[in-house]
Amino acid sequence: MGTTIDRERSAARIEREIETLSGPEFTTSSEAIRRYAYTPEYRRTLDHFGAALRELGFTVDEDPVGTLVARNRPPGEPAFGIGSHCDSNRNGGRYDGTMGVVTALEVCRLSAEHDLDLPLQLVSFLEEEGSGFGQMLLGSRIMLQRVTEEDLRERFLAIDDGRSFWEHAEAAGYEPARWRESIRVLDGLTGWIEMHIEQARVLQDSGKRIGIVDAIAGYVHADVFVSGRGDHAGATPMGLRLDPTTVLAETVLELERLATEAGGGTVGTVGEIELDPSLINAVAAEARFSLDVRGPQDALFQGVARDTAAFAGRAAERRGMTARTVQRQTLPATPLDARVVGALQAAAAGTGEPWTTMHSGAAHDTMCVAERVPSAMVFVPCTDGISHHPAEEADSADAALAAEIILNAIAALR
Amino acid sequence: MGTTIDRERSAARIEREIETLSGPEFTTSSEAIRRYAYTPEYRRTLDHFGAALRELGFTVDEDPVGTLVARNRPPGEPAFGIGSHCDSNRNGGRYDGTMGVVTALEVCRLSAEHDLDLPLQLVSFLEEEGSGFGQMLLGSRIMLQRVTEEDLRERFLAIDDGRSFWEHAEAAGYEPARWRESIRVLDGLTGWIEMHIEQARVLQDSGKRIGIVDAIAGYVHADVFVSGRGDHAGATPMGLRLDPTTVLAETVLELERLATEAGGGTVGTVGEIELDPSLINAVAAEARFSLDVRGPQDALFQGVARDTAAFAGRAAERRGMTARTVQRQTLPATPLDARVVGALQAAAAGTGEPWTTMHSGAAHDTMCVAERVPSAMVFVPCTDGISHHPAEEADSADAALAAEIILNAIAALR
Repeated sequence: MGTTIDRERSAARIEREIETLSGPEFTTSSEAIRRYAYTPEYRRTLDHFGAALRELGFTVDEDPVGTLVARNRPPGEPAFGIGSHCDSNRNGGRYDGTMGVVTALEVCRLSAEHDLDLPLQLVSFLEEEGSGFGQMLLGSRIMLQRVTEEDLRERFLAIDDGRSFWEHAEAAGYEPARWRESIRVLDGLTGWIEMHIEQARVLQDSGKRIGIVDAIAGYVHADVFVSGRGDHAGATPMGLRLDPTTVLAETVLELERLATEAGGGTVGTVGEIELDPSLINAVAAEARFSLDVRGPQDALFQGVARDTAAFAGRAAERRGMTARTVQRQTLPATPLDARVVGALQAAAAGTGEPWTTMHSGAAHDTMCVAERVPSAMVFVPCTDGISHHPAEEADSADAALAAEIILNAIAALR
Repeated sequence: MGTTIDRERSAARIEREIETLSGPEFTTSSEAIRRYAYTPEYRRTLDHFGAALRELGFTVDEDPVGTLVARNRPPGEPAFGIGSHCDSNRNGGRYDGTMGVVTALEVCRLSAEHDLDLPLQLVSFLEEEGSGFGQMLLGSRIMLQRVTEEDLRERFLAIDDGRSFWEHAEAAGYEPARWRESIRVLDGLTGWIEMHIEQARVLQDSGKRIGIVDAIAGYVHADVFVSGRGDHAGATPMGLRLDPTTVLAETVLELERLATEAGGGTVGTVGEIELDPSLINAVAAEARFSLDVRGPQDALFQGVARDTAAFAGRAAERRGMTARTVQRQTLPATPLDARVVGALQAAAAGTGEPWTTMHSGAAHDTMCVAERVPSAMVFVPCTDGISHHPAEEADSADAALAAEIILNAIAALR
């Protein structure tokens, strides 16, 4: 039936770690948790985890760009991967990423305490949030060779000083020239589980303490540009207008309708709107708005993105204007591994606590890892879905429950 | 049947004046016509008009804040007022305002040449565009006592250096302490006609050369604030969202419907939209958008503004959000004088050229003057309705036609 842990003790340990890593030596801002690659605060965070893992007998290492890797087995021997990231959004909170690494550390502690001696490898990914160089999932993309050397040498520039990722990595004592070797971190991994806060309110609103994640949504990011005609807002009769805000309005409502109708977890959002000019007394000449369409089923979300772009074009044409949609980026959905998901579901069921199976709408490093390693994720609720904000809040008791579930799933998969 | 003028000669003179006043000594920018109160360029513009009017035997004066006033009759004797403003939008063109003063000067010339000896008073208003102190219609509002002394001493600050209107006026040699006497400019005026470019495309699109303006639209300027809930764009299911952009979208379309349905020249515009946060991957927490609702009939445009605000409130409520509408400013419509309008219509009909009666959607100094003096306006087309831009273009032949119409209207009203 698996191991029953002392959840209160685990929760207290998790709480203490989170508390420690929220201290002034671990954040560059006093108003938020702000922590990113190659800063002294980030260095101290890696060292903190390194020391705790060494105490448990783990060998602690870093890959050529600074991804933390700790194992309780010699190199080459198989192990099960657990972890997340410990960098934060610039205006971040205590839990996004960090709670996943802290919970992975707790799994390592529990494995030792309960004499399970599970073969474990903890990974803390570099720059998941992109706060240092504006590139999300940077560490896991480097690991999976989803970047080019030119990106690292020239294109990815520090938000703070404009110097390249390459320069910063070298200045911090790493060997970016060996970045391709980062893939070896995954060598011998028999599976991977990442715990993360949900960053939305599905768990809270449905009264669940645990979400077993069976897919990570893919997405289309695009911009729609509507060209109308700038006119005087007072002097131009309604019938003579080419007002692009009307096409924007129709498209916002159509996107809502299409995403709702598509179902299957498809969502669509207009998060940015820009009018030119932007004046109370002028009919805008141009409107730009962003499209973010996601879902765990490629055919559904890609269909909604396509239909929305086509609708905007027709809506503009009907009114004598033009609209063109320019894609920024698209990524297919990542189905997670049925066996790892199943082990987590069984372990969750064994706790007697309320849980559910769900997909992740947000992107995670696990999207990259899953390309090579059978992977799954575990979500815990965060208050009101607030994330990427100092007000972010999650319960260490839920993280302790997640630790128990992960521990038992890995034991079952062994 | 009125006087028939040599329109080609008048057009050539108007063209020459416009050309002169577009020279480098009359604008502070080489890329636009930029001219505002108390700059050397503005001073030279007033001096240019002053010299031309003195040549015609006019007495040239300025009111206590710098409004140019020239008469061909002694103070106290009745005269008919004509003119406009010769300051410009900061990114302005050659015609907005200036063409009206140039055309008024042409009327003065024609009155002399045709031995009509009409009693005339030319006025060039100060700071119509608000380019100096951010206050539209400033000169005519001062004249009509629609400002307070505190406004002039403390509140109205120069865009360039933050110093007060009062200080700038004194530095330029005026006596702002006597600002209340500015109202005397209107003493003895038997009527007022302002010529202006249309700043929209009604005349161009309907093939008319002249618009006789029988009303100036009033307006409501307001902001609608919709409070939703900021959420992760990927992780928040459609059914759990409180997305304020949907209320924005519904309200944009309802405003369009209401303004169109109201008719009678009512127009409604959403010219500014602001989302907070404004991120492609976030459902906005708040949306702000501006409302500009105008028309020549108070009951109609005020009704549309009221109904739009109420609709936004209901639309938000239906979706579990709130919307509140905050008024920035409102001004009733200004009906113009039927007798002056009638004289202009008769004179326009006498030319055999295509003309129409219309209202002005834009605000003009005549809104203030009309409070005290029987007033009307004459519009000439401007290419594609473009105004407040260096590309602004109007035809001197149309202005010459306007001069003939104004001349004959004043003669008929004598």
